[in-house]
Amino acid sequence: MKNEISIGLLGLGTVGSGVAKIIQQHQQDLHHKLGAQVLIGKVLVRDANKDRLSSLDPSVFTTDIEEILNDSSLDIIVEVMGGIAGAKLAIEKALRTGKQVVTANKDVMAEYGHDLLKLADAEKCDLFYEASVAGGVPIIRTLEDGLASDRISSLIGIVNGTTNFILTKMKKENMSYEDALAEATELGYAEADPSADVDGIDAARKMVILSSLAFSTEVHLDDVLVRGMKEIRDGDLELANKFGYTIKMVGSSTKDEDGIEVSVEPIFLANSHLLASVNNEFNAVYIYGDAVGETMLYGPGAGSLPTATSVVSDIIAACRNLQLGVNGKRVHSAQHERVIKPETKCFAKYCHRLLVNDEVGVLSKMTSIYSKHEASIQSVMQSPAKQVGKAELVLLTHQISRQQHLDVLSDLEGTASVISHYRIEGEETV
Amino acid sequence: MKNEISIGLLGLGTVGSGVAKIIQQHQQDLHHKLGAQVLIGKVLVRDANKDRLSSLDPSVFTTDIEEILNDSSLDIIVEVMGGIAGAKLAIEKALRTGKQVVTANKDVMAEYGHDLLKLADAEKCDLFYEASVAGGVPIIRTLEDGLASDRISSLIGIVNGTTNFILTKMKKENMSYEDALAEATELGYAEADPSADVDGIDAARKMVILSSLAFSTEVHLDDVLVRGMKEIRDGDLELANKFGYTIKMVGSSTKDEDGIEVSVEPIFLANSHLLASVNNEFNAVYIYGDAVGETMLYGPGAGSLPTATSVVSDIIAACRNLQLGVNGKRVHSAQHERVIKPETKCFAKYCHRLLVNDEVGVLSKMTSIYSKHEASIQSVMQSPAKQVGKAELVLLTHQISRQQHLDVLSDLEGTASVISHYRIEGEETV
Repeated sequence: MKNEISIGLLGLGTVGSGVAKIIQQHQQDLHHKLGAQVLIGKVLVRDANKDRLSSLDPSVFTTDIEEILNDSSLDIIVEVMGGIAGAKLAIEKALRTGKQVVTANKDVMAEYGHDLLKLADAEKCDLFYEASVAGGVPIIRTLEDGLASDRISSLIGIVNGTTNFILTKMKKENMSYEDALAEATELGYAEADPSADVDGIDAARKMVILSSLAFSTEVHLDDVLVRGMKEIRDGDLELANKFGYTIKMVGSSTKDEDGIEVSVEPIFLANSHLLASVNNEFNAVYIYGDAVGETMLYGPGAGSLPTATSVVSDIIAACRNLQLGVNGKRVHSAQHERVIKPETKCFAKYCHRLLVNDEVGVLSKMTSIYSKHEASIQSVMQSPAKQVGKAELVLLTHQISRQQHLDVLSDLEGTASVISHYRIEGEETV
Repeated sequence: MKNEISIGLLGLGTVGSGVAKIIQQHQQDLHHKLGAQVLIGKVLVRDANKDRLSSLDPSVFTTDIEEILNDSSLDIIVEVMGGIAGAKLAIEKALRTGKQVVTANKDVMAEYGHDLLKLADAEKCDLFYEASVAGGVPIIRTLEDGLASDRISSLIGIVNGTTNFILTKMKKENMSYEDALAEATELGYAEADPSADVDGIDAARKMVILSSLAFSTEVHLDDVLVRGMKEIRDGDLELANKFGYTIKMVGSSTKDEDGIEVSVEPIFLANSHLLASVNNEFNAVYIYGDAVGETMLYGPGAGSLPTATSVVSDIIAACRNLQLGVNGKRVHSAQHERVIKPETKCFAKYCHRLLVNDEVGVLSKMTSIYSKHEASIQSVMQSPAKQVGKAELVLLTHQISRQQHLDVLSDLEGTASVISHYRIEGEETV
């Protein structure tokens, strides 16, 4: 049993300063839980002389990452510096020198998580990454421990706070996409370059991490179907609402005997689904398990203190293991071969919104294309379009395969232009 | 490292048979996770000769609990027999003979949890009880590990599925209380004697367990203010709805510098609060943490397989500890003295629904009573009552203490009769 556990903190930005704050303010609680003092031994910063609000002793600051990685008095390395290449190297080196590692870095975990976890296993070190997905929501731990006994069949989550904030503002306050994005940027929910968020890349990375864990298999970023917010057209939110749905940027992941299917895209989500009530910058992950049925975890997706909470919970887990001498004992190897489901086996209902010439026989011409691909239609709604001589058709399908959906859309070309299309989740309420 | 871990299962009812089923069906997954086979070595049943659907070898059945508790080949005792005195004795004996214990028994944990956890610590054994609160929802683990780094300031939860089912039916389908209860009984959500559920005792026990853990202090059942569903009068649901609220049976627990406040009662919950969207038999616990902000866990509150999922996740945790030789290393001692907040320090908004004589000056007489106790009124709504010569007054207060609330209600006697009264949580939306 150690009396002191020493942390090397790589980065003192938004999350890093939150971690430092929690550790300093919770000294007594930590001592009660661990029987040891948890100290911040060294902190990597960009400029060691910069005035800082934190009450850390200035002697702990260094601009030299090697000084931290080579310091044998440090027990745990906390990587909250961001970026990919440098962070990956730092994690590798820390593990190779027998240090426990906690990271909040979803980019690294999505791209190199499988390798890094194998390295951690080989080096008998802990590698914890709770904060990499859905900031303050303990989703990794729940999948690893809380639902350890269950077989997860599907996950559906709002795992990007920026896009959820924008969509909430668009729906509840009739804001334009541009205005909602501007407000998200002003409040610090969106980055200066918001493309990773609005294009769905950020959410896709999180779905790689969650899917790999939930299905005990190695899912890669390339396996994820990604469609961003730009697929949403004027009038789509109202259209969804008319049918009892809310448009949400949702990450989905399902597994059955045909394989795994992972996607991030704006979908029509039934208003009756609890996930449709998750608003603003909040995140939530809805889990379907064979035995447990349906569960959901909800909470802040980002922010200094919420994310730092997850990081420090990981630090506590690593400290407990240190005190017991049982670090690196988790089994991280994938239990199952990675099998990605072909699009002929991915079934869903879809909404197709089409612009057609307003002329006799157009509906019959349309529906014959659906028939040709055996894509069964649940309902068709025709309304005049803004353009003279044009009409809008909204078709809701029954369950069809993604291949059928794509074949229909492709065959419609020439006869209709596709304004937008959505997968549908949950039962409509009106 | 063991090659086999052997379980003694006390009880083969709803939960016990779910546990047996999951363990048998997930042999491969368990072996992958633990590097050992998990076997069910002995099962306590009422009648060893009864035909059972389970595929367990009949030789494992016994009607003699001592045969299980004295069996030194068993590593883990799983108590899913229910009841209080016998279950408590069994858990004590198991711990005293060095066995790890997993229980789903909220009654025992609410009444004797503090003592049993101390005994487990003394005997260096694990005592896990995830399934005792909110069946399939991993709330214990989240409070212990996921939010280990945070200070919880308040919990508010729907922790009884029966009453939530009844209230959902009453609200959404305009059912009477009696019809909704009958349907709950038919579906197996309510017991033959539903009083523990509808009177709030079941929820109070769960709040004792959650509050003790969240605040690291010894909360007792007597500390909980309990009001049951019978406090809800005809017309209350519609009244709540008119103001933008939903009536939910809610367990609340808050801690501040004045102490702890724990209650179970029907409240007016703002429709905008995510908890108000938790319907049917589902449970959810909403957690406010200093650092994390707001998080919520949602899932099935009962049922064979959901509850068994939590039990088996606990079994896996105990197995992991067995494999590492680190059982009984959790700190369970309370960090803080138990201080229950006086009613003069418990602040909330309230709704008072009163029946008064429909005569000149009655409103002034009423409001003077509120003034006398410095209880500030936010709004008053007067409407004709069904009884001739009577009127109904609905008063919503600003924040007042529970003591003020009680003083006002007591002083109203003689002038008005109190039809019903509710604490209000969350901001109204209309």
